[in-house]
Parts: sequence; C-alpha cells; structure tokens
Amino acid sequence: MAEWSHFNEQGRAKMSDVSGKEQTKRTAVARAVVRMKPETLSAIQEGRVKKGDVLAVAQVAGVMAAKRTPDLIPMCHTIPLTHVDLRFFPRESEGRRDFAELEIESEVSTVASTGVEMEALTAVSVAALTVYDMCKAIDRAMEVTSVYLLEKSGGKSGDYRRDEPRRRNGV
Amino acid sequence: MAEWSHFNEQGRAKMSDVSGKEQTKRTAVARAVVRMKPETLSAIQEGRVKKGDVLAVAQVAGVMAAKRTPDLIPMCHTIPLTHVDLRFFPRESEGRRDFAELEIESEVSTVASTGVEMEALTAVSVAALTVYDMCKAIDRAMEVTSVYLLEKSGGKSGDYRRDEPRRRNGV
Amino acid sequence: MAEWSHFNEQGRAKMSDVSGKEQTKRTAVARAVVRMKPETLSAIQEGRVKKGDVLAVAQVAGVMAAKRTPDLIPMCHTIPLTHVDLRFFPRESEGRRDFAELEIESEVSTVASTGVEMEALTAVSVAALTVYDMCKAIDRAMEVTSVYLLEKSGGKSGDYRRDEPRRRNGV
Amino acid sequence: MAEWSHFNEQGRAKMSDVSGKEQTKRTAVARAVVRMKPETLSAIQEGRVKKGDVLAVAQVAGVMAAKRTPDLIPMCHTIPLTHVDLRFFPRESEGRRDFAELEIESEVSTVASTGVEMEALTAVSVAALTVYDMCKAIDRAMEVTSVYLLEKSGGKSGDYRRDEPRRRNGV
Amino acid sequence: MAEWSHFNEQGRAKMSDVSGKEQTKRTAVARAVVRMKPETLSAIQEGRVKKGDVLAVAQVAGVMAAKRTPDLIPMCHTIPLTHVDLRFFPRESEGRRDFAELEIESEVSTVASTGVEMEALTAVSVAALTVYDMCKAIDRAMEVTSVYLLEKSGGKSGDYRRDEPRRRNGV
Amino acid sequence: MAEWSHFNEQGRAKMSDVSGKEQTKRTAVARAVVRMKPETLSAIQEGRVKKGDVLAVAQVAGVMAAKRTPDLIPMCHTIPLTHVDLRFFPRESEGRRDFAELEIESEVSTVASTGVEMEALTAVSVAALTVYDMCKAIDRAMEVTSVYLLEKSGGKSGDYRRDEPRRRNGV
Repeated sequence: MAEWSHFNEQGRAKMSDVSGKEQTKRTAVARAVVRMKPETLSAIQEGRVKKGDVLAVAQVAGVMAAKRTPDLIPMCHTIPLTHVDLRFFPRESEGRRDFAELEIESEVSTVASTGVEMEALTAVSVAALTVYDMCKAIDRAMEVTSVYLLEKSGGKSGDYRRDEPRRRNGV
Repeated sequence: MAEWSHFNEQGRAKMSDVSGKEQTKRTAVARAVVRMKPETLSAIQEGRVKKGDVLAVAQVAGVMAAKRTPDLIPMCHTIPLTHVDLRFFPRESEGRRDFAELEIESEVSTVASTGVEMEALTAVSVAALTVYDMCKAIDRAMEVTSVYLLEKSGGKSGDYRRDEPRRRNGV
Repeated sequence: MAEWSHFNEQGRAKMSDVSGKEQTKRTAVARAVVRMKPETLSAIQEGRVKKGDVLAVAQVAGVMAAKRTPDLIPMCHTIPLTHVDLRFFPRESEGRRDFAELEIESEVSTVASTGVEMEALTAVSVAALTVYDMCKAIDRAMEVTSVYLLEKSGGKSGDYRRDEPRRRNGV
Repeated sequence: MAEWSHFNEQGRAKMSDVSGKEQTKRTAVARAVVRMKPETLSAIQEGRVKKGDVLAVAQVAGVMAAKRTPDLIPMCHTIPLTHVDLRFFPRESEGRRDFAELEIESEVSTVASTGVEMEALTAVSVAALTVYDMCKAIDRAMEVTSVYLLEKSGGKSGDYRRDEPRRRNGV
Repeated sequence: MAEWSHFNEQGRAKMSDVSGKEQTKRTAVARAVVRMKPETLSAIQEGRVKKGDVLAVAQVAGVMAAKRTPDLIPMCHTIPLTHVDLRFFPRESEGRRDFAELEIESEVSTVASTGVEMEALTAVSVAALTVYDMCKAIDRAMEVTSVYLLEKSGGKSGDYRRDEPRRRNGV
Repeated sequence: MAEWSHFNEQGRAKMSDVSGKEQTKRTAVARAVVRMKPETLSAIQEGRVKKGDVLAVAQVAGVMAAKRTPDLIPMCHTIPLTHVDLRFFPRESEGRRDFAELEIESEVSTVASTGVEMEALTAVSVAALTVYDMCKAIDRAMEVTSVYLLEKSGGKSGDYRRDEPRRRNGV
C-alpha cells in the first residue's frame, strides 16, 4: 500500500510537501447526484423561468465553495484556480420510479504543483447541499446519493477516469 | 406545494425572514456514508493507533465546517451553534463484498429562531470529503454514497425522523 | 458633536460596547446605483431569459456579503441576521441620455443589540461590484454612482429615513 | 457586443478559464469618493493627531478586503496579490458647498494570468464603508458618490485609463 | 481531574454542549508581551506621529481576529461579541536592559451561554504577530514572551483573576 | 535603521510591493512553548491513546491557521503554501519543577516572491491557543511563554537562524 503522504513521522497530519513539483495544468471533474421527488425536480426546472432559479444559487455556491476548499479540507493546499464551472443534468432516477435525480458536474482547473480533485468534489457537494437548502421546505427527504471524482488529468500521478460517461446537455 | 420561502417577489433568492420566530432549542442529525476498499478502511482503523489518525482530522474538519455553513450555503442564516459532534461507524458494505463503508453521523444544536439541518449536513459532507482527501493516494475511487438528514427537532415545522436507526457505537 | 463610540481612551479603534443594550428587532435598507451604457443594461435584462442571469449572481453575492460584513468592516459587531433580501430596478439615467442605471436595494433585519446598517450597505456594494465584474468585459467604464442608507428602524438612536422613495417593482 | 466570458453554454455563471493565459504583471487603480458634512471631514482629519485615526482603520480594512475579493465576488479568480496600497485625499465637494469629500484611491498589483480590477474596486469600496461605519454616529447621511476603475495595465485586453488625473498628495 | 468537556465517548473532539446554559454577560481580559530591541519600540512609538502607526494596524488586526476566533480554534463556539478593545503598554523589559517590551491587553465581552477567553487570547496573539510582521524587517529576533488569560467573569465556572495587576495607561 | 517597507508616503500601512521579486523556494520554522501543570501535560500525553487527542486537534488548527494567515495579519501577502507541518515536544520546564512544557514547532514552505515567517508563527500560535482551549477546564493558568521564529531560508534578505537547536523527536 502506498504511504500516507498526509502524515508526518509523529503520526500527525500535515500538508504534504509539493515544493519541488512542477507547476503544470491540472484538471478535475467531479459529480454529485441529488435524489428527490419528481415534483421537486419539476419545480426546480419550472422555477428558472417563473418563480426563482434554485440552480442559479447552487451554481454560485459551488463556484465559491471551490475557492474555499483549502479553508474546509484541512490538509488541502492553497492554489490559485484558473477555471471553475458547474453543469446540471435532471433525469429520471435509475430503477426507482418514485424518484427523480439531479446530477451536478463540476470542472476545475489550475496551473499548479498539485491537483484540484478536492476543489471539484467540494464544488459539487456544496452545490448539492444548496439545492437541498433551497428545496427542503417542500421535500425534506431529499438525499445526496453520490459524490465522486469522474476524472482528473495532469500531474505526476497520472490521469484517472472513472468508467462512466460525462454528460453533454443539461439545464 | 408549499411556497418557496427562499425567493422574493422578483423571483430572486433571499434569506427568508425569521425575525418573528421564537428562539428555541433546535437539533439536527445528519449522516454521510463513504464507500471504499476494505483495505482502506482497515488502514484508517489501524492508523489511529499507529501511523496517523484520518478520522481525527475529519472530525475537526466537520466541526469547523458546521460553523462555516452560512459562508457556504448562500441563503442559510447565521446562527450561534451550541453543540456540534461527529461520530464514525465503520462497517461492511451492504450487499457488496468488495467494499467497506464508513458512516459519519453529526449532531448539531442551537438555541435560535431557525434550524440547523444545513449545519449538520455540511458537517458530515466536509468530514466525508476530508476522509477522501486523506486517503485518495491509496484509493482514488472512494465515493460518498449518501448524505441525508436523519432527524431534526424543534421549531414550528415540527420534528422529522427518517425511517432509519441511529448508530450507538463506533470508532 | 457626538463622541466617537469607536475609539478608546488611547485614541485607538475599538468595537463599541453594546453588552447592556436590549435585543430588539432592527432593520436597515440601503441602495446602490450602477451607471452603465444602455446596451449593457439591455444585455443584463435579456440575459435572464436567454444567455445568463447577471443579477442572480449579484443577488447571491449580496446576500452572502451581508453575512460577511463583520469580517470586512473592522469595528462591526458579529450579529445573527434574520433576513436579507435584495431587489433590482433598471431605469434610464436621470439627466444623462447616454447612460442607463441599475438600482440595487437591500433590506436586512436582525433581533440584536445593535443595528444592521453596515450589513445593508455591504450587501448593495458587493452586489454592485459583482454586476461590474460580470459585465466589465463589455463595459469597463461602468461606475457605482451612489451607495447610501435609505432607512433604518429599531434601536435607541431612533429611526432614520432619507428623503427618497423606496422602489416597488423591478426585475 | 463581446461575448459573456462569465457564462457557460447552459447560461449559468462560471469562473472563466484563464489556464492558458500568460502570467504577467498586472496593476489596477480604483477610486471611491465619500461625501460628508465638512465638519465630519474635519473631525477625521483632526482625529489622526488627537482622538482616533478613522483612516488608519479604513486603510487596514481596504487592504484586507483586497485579499478577500475572491470570497466576495463570485466569479473572481483567486490570485496572489503582490502589492496593495490605499491613499486618502480630502477635498471640498465640487459644486456643493455644504459638503466635503474624501477620495480614496487604491493600487493593486499581481503577477498572474488575470487582472486585479475587482481587487482594487473592492479595496476602495470597503475602505469607504469603513469610513461610514466609524463616522455614522455623527453623520448618518454620508454617501459613497462614486466607485470606479481609474486605470489598469497588463494583460491581453490592454491598458485602460479613465480620463481623470490621479492624485499625488493626501493625508 | 475534571472531565474533558471537549471529547465525546469515541474519544474524539467535539464542540461541548452549551444549549442549556443561561445567556449572561461574560467578559475576559488577556495579555500578550512582545520583547524587542529598545530602538524598535522607540520606532513604534515615534511612528504614530510621524511615519506610520504600527499599533493602529495591530489594533485592527486584534479586533478582527477576536471575531474570527471560532474559525481558528476548532472547538470554540460561535457567539456574537458585544465588545472588543485592545490597549498597548510599552515598558522596559524586566531584568534585561537590552530589551524593551510592548504589552498588549485585550478585553472582550459577550452576552451568551459560554465565555470569551479564547477570543481575548486570540486578539492579543494576532495583535502581537502583527507587530512582529510590521517590524520584522528591522528586528527579526522579536519574540512573543507571554500570552495568558488575566481575568474572566460571568458564567457558571465562576470568576478567575490571575495574580497580576491590569495596566491603566498606555499608548 | 532599515526603512519601513509596510508604510506608504502618507504614513499609512500598505502591503509591500513584491511584484518584481523572484519566485524561489522559501521556508520558515517557528516555535511556541506552552507552560502547564505537569498533570495537564500527562493528561494530554495519555489522551492520545485513551480519551481524546488534544494534539491532533491542535495540529489541524495549526495547519489551517497557516493557510489563513493573510486573513489575519493585515499586511501579509497571499501566497500558495507548498508545505505545512507541526511537531510537538513535551518536556520538563527549565528551572521550574512545578511546571511542564509543551513545545510546538512548525515548518512552512512556499515557492513565491515573499517569505513565510508569518505563516509559521501563526501556525504555532493558533496550535498553542487550541491546546489552551482544549485543556482550560482543567488548567486555566496555562500560559504561552514563547512564540518566535527559529529559522528562515530563501529570499533576498538571506537566511536567519536563531541560536537554538531544532528538536528531533516528539509525540
């Protein structure tokens, strides 16, 4: 098993040393899925045009959270981000007719000596929680059913791609 | 369907008005589940004694994140928290032998005019992401498979309890 | 002239003592005006439906900034906010045909021992700067031409109302 | 009209991609003007020597706010700042004898792949609000009458200079 | 020995539960001492009048840090502060002629269900570090030789007073 | 005496200009000492195995505080940190049998155009305050008896090494 880069010889957590690593372009894509009642998803989708845009708020929350990642994840490096974007994909829930799903996908880039996986994961997590916050009065049982890294590129540890397609359209 | 308390008459998001609501004790319990390779979970459990305590870092991250919730969730009220705690429960993954699971449970309280669901959810989300960050070098495919509200009490909207037991022991 | 409540006997700034003041409901309304080219304002207004909603971002930025006020204004008290809202009012520029104006109005409330003027002013200031940021690529000469307190109520210093009407409709 | 670099193809706000842009020195100068009663300005000017230095507080607030800009302006990039400075220029109000004005000028630099206009504008905005906060007990009708970009240099979009002189002396 | 209120039954840190404690006025006074070369202290003292006021910056930093305490000290409660003040006392170093000392004293109050010792200690610590930062170019060997709680009052655990006098004058 | 790089020609604090300085590796090591009752230190040391790990919390607090330094120290530059680590060394108090001491040592690195002394000092200060917070219920008279820079390297101002050894083992 690989060693723990996040612990020192006292067995205490540290921010791992990336001083000697090259500054290269690095990108990460993450995804979160929020499961809700079909009528909640409909309300979100209609809201954009009429009553209030839940996803616009979640979008801003996700972008800002990406920037706050080193304030939240203790051993995460502080790096300047060069790109943050989130996209939303509503869909029927796989295998469960009584639920709909909102998929949230983030893409984060930097030119730095370490990667941005945590920034991408934090962005979708906070966007998902924001959707929950905005809709909890109408659907308290909403659940985030998935948060994971979809792909990353750049850096010495090489590229990673989870065996799942990226979405192309959305709302 | 209930009205959107988070939008104004321009259809734009607002922090809903709780000025007239009574300040009472409110509690929320949330849960996140992180799915990982069984050897990753073993490494976490052994680490506490020997090499480095991943969960101690996640614990601190979760408590601090609960306090930062209004900075992250745009329409969330700023309220003083009177209690934040997180507990960890390792277990075999239900139905999938090739995975183990770490369950993270938070409990947050306040005496205020609005609830702390978002604080409890943010605490477990950030704790889960911290576990990911600390272990990603050895298991990049880790996934947060669930983030949800387990129960809440206090406030005019009444108590809520998801149909699932709370854990009693853990690590 | 009233004494400086924000300086101690060493002539150094302090956060004034409100320990003995009663916790009552306090509200403040502030306004900012952003002057821009008429076609910039048109682009903002059309964007909501078609290409991207500048004001949705400014709205979120303003609400979040209200919560961050004590982090920004050094001698400002940390108080829980019970309500934050912003509204936008596009209009022709008074007296200058070559400009259009976007008026931003915030309303902030608390139940606390001190007022929320600074929170209301910070909300509209940051919302105005966000409009600038989102549109600067198409109109770098945009200018915030006004930021002021429109009214405040509650607290021992009494109510204040600037001699100007509040807007009622908007976008 | 130039395209909106801050929106994605879903029409949602994003942090625009500057990954491929060169890291060069970039500077921005911004200005805010605060209008107040002449006796308020006198009190500020005398305070430095005797009772308490309002502008020292505003100075610190402005420098710190420049550093917090990406936390406030949602789509603003996180970049390391290499220089932040603010200067204050008291003067009689143009065309209105019953008012005096305090002009606040910021200069911000970076070596990065994007500019610092928002940092310069945020610095003067927060400094102006701090002046308001420190003096509001004696002059609640103070007003920020102007916040704008004075000049910027560096970067591919070229230099910009508003048709106004920069101040040279001050307090 | 008293029990650890900051650990749960899993042996992990928590924010202790103060939900049931009464909201009363609580005050804490803390002190930090910075030891420096006598000429550094002279430069600080002269600077106020002539070249630049180091202590004005330290004052603002200390007040702002008091407000940020729950963001820094992991298990510290988020409470609204009703008063923060710092005072500075230059003096000769006790027993060492080659050093001078700057004493920094903070006083912090709240009306809350828990005390403000950490806020008072954080305020003087950050003020002391700010003095170091502002003067390090001329005296890198400066040292914070003491940070401690001087007194606290209010709350169930009773009053505490260290056996040392509080200062009355200063700069 | 060297000039004040942190003041402008108005005698007001500024963030000094490092735009033209080369980006090189810079490291700083700082130390804080916390004096406490011997039984408090014993409780901390035993706690790691049994009841709760005070130092794990202090470790995380110190690392996170290093990243927050520019938010705390007003004129401090915002730079990306490439490494942060803290170590703890318990020992008997020199010359005073009734006290024990916990020494906290931080090491911080960056590749930037300015140094990280303040980050290293902030890390140990906040770690020390966290130890105080976690143990104050059992030993309110704990005192931070020292915070200082131990060494720094890199940058034009040259290396600095205080005449004291660095520790090699610890807990």
